[in-house]
Amino acid sequence: MNLLLLEAAQLRGTRAVLSPLQTRHARDVLRVMPGQDLRVGMLDGPRGVGRVVHAGDSVELECTFESAPPPIPDVDLLLALPRPKVMRRLWAQLAALGVGHIVLTNAARVERNYFDTHVLQPDVYRPLLVEGLQQAQDTHLPRVSIHRRFRPLVEDELDARSPADARLVAHPSTAAAPIAGAWPRGAGRVLLAVGPEGGWDEFELQLLGDRGFSPVSLGPRTLRTDTACVALLAALRAGRDAHRS
Amino acid sequence: MNLLLLEAAQLRGTRAVLSPLQTRHARDVLRVMPGQDLRVGMLDGPRGVGRVVHAGDSVELECTFESAPPPIPDVDLLLALPRPKVMRRLWAQLAALGVGHIVLTNAARVERNYFDTHVLQPDVYRPLLVEGLQQAQDTHLPRVSIHRRFRPLVEDELDARSPADARLVAHPSTAAAPIAGAWPRGAGRVLLAVGPEGGWDEFELQLLGDRGFSPVSLGPRTLRTDTACVALLAALRAGRDAHRS
Repeated sequence: MNLLLLEAAQLRGTRAVLSPLQTRHARDVLRVMPGQDLRVGMLDGPRGVGRVVHAGDSVELECTFESAPPPIPDVDLLLALPRPKVMRRLWAQLAALGVGHIVLTNAARVERNYFDTHVLQPDVYRPLLVEGLQQAQDTHLPRVSIHRRFRPLVEDELDARSPADARLVAHPSTAAAPIAGAWPRGAGRVLLAVGPEGGWDEFELQLLGDRGFSPVSLGPRTLRTDTACVALLAALRAGRDAHRS
Repeated sequence: MNLLLLEAAQLRGTRAVLSPLQTRHARDVLRVMPGQDLRVGMLDGPRGVGRVVHAGDSVELECTFESAPPPIPDVDLLLALPRPKVMRRLWAQLAALGVGHIVLTNAARVERNYFDTHVLQPDVYRPLLVEGLQQAQDTHLPRVSIHRRFRPLVEDELDARSPADARLVAHPSTAAAPIAGAWPRGAGRVLLAVGPEGGWDEFELQLLGDRGFSPVSLGPRTLRTDTACVALLAALRAGRDAHRS
């Protein structure tokens, strides 16, 4: 844990009381002592420093925060729901890489029963997202929405869910542009669509195309959804930064 | 499984007999019928097509191979051994992304008992590597070597292990170059060093610097080792491709 994320309810003024789980970590792993400084952050707020003022059965911090929160992540993800085991692995990684909104959707090649998994329940995925944020020292909890119908989502709801300047759809076709050069010049925010293991079907690609998604590709290697998401996000941003430099 | 990897011992001329595990997959998941074509590959050899000539208790394929194997992956990885759970997740992902040689090493911030895990035994990691290759449709099994002493490895053995044209070390410092622009012009092959969760120590960075490793960074977010490896490999290649385009 590289940053201790605090929720508003833990603070009285500038004084924070750690949760039981955080207390155990602070005591048993960090072995905190009064006077010690810890890197802290307010959930969806600024980062700062918390000085340990009490370390016993409970741990209390006196906090000083930066004036502004870190920037909001510049990518939203529209993801065809992968199998539960893969989705479980993804939550913390997506939060660590920085995603503004995680929009999970059905698609023709998604199995219906994937939607019944407990991995989609907030009490399961929220701690995993927080874990990823604490790893990456971010405070912006990704927004999550889950959609069992692809078409109404893409046709009617997506505009409100993701205020992106540009839309890309990952699709391993020779007609797709390499992801490395795909960040549109001047775009502040990108919505990236990633399909199921078997790929989007023709109808879905057509609908996404109609709604402004341009096809991009990571190359000829077929990757598992979790590897693909991490690689796509990293390659997309790296390509933008390489062009800027 | 996007490609069925065959070992030399499975072939008599152009005729391949599937292993019991492959037979079960072909029968129960792919539901193969005589006459059907499957994408196949020879381990460390060419890819091709296998036509099902017999499908019963055993499955037999008549194979036609391409004239040349796919290109050897252009990156080698020098990785400070992560904890076993993370290493287990990495094997298939590294093979899927394409790594020529995986060189695992000790470092000051690696816990000694990480080396005792069964995740480092060939009978555990080899099937995971094969799984990653079959996912990505590659045939080149990454070479693996495991080193309990960092200094002799870097000083005496690394030159022979990885014939790379350029060496980079991932290190989150402001002095490090962004990974996106880090692929040296003209380099055909890169050796990338990735440190433990707590980072390389000063001695290690000095030694790596003395042996030609230049520092590169993925940015301010601290990532778990598995996420970092995938993101670094993807960003490094994407940056190279963006500069070429």
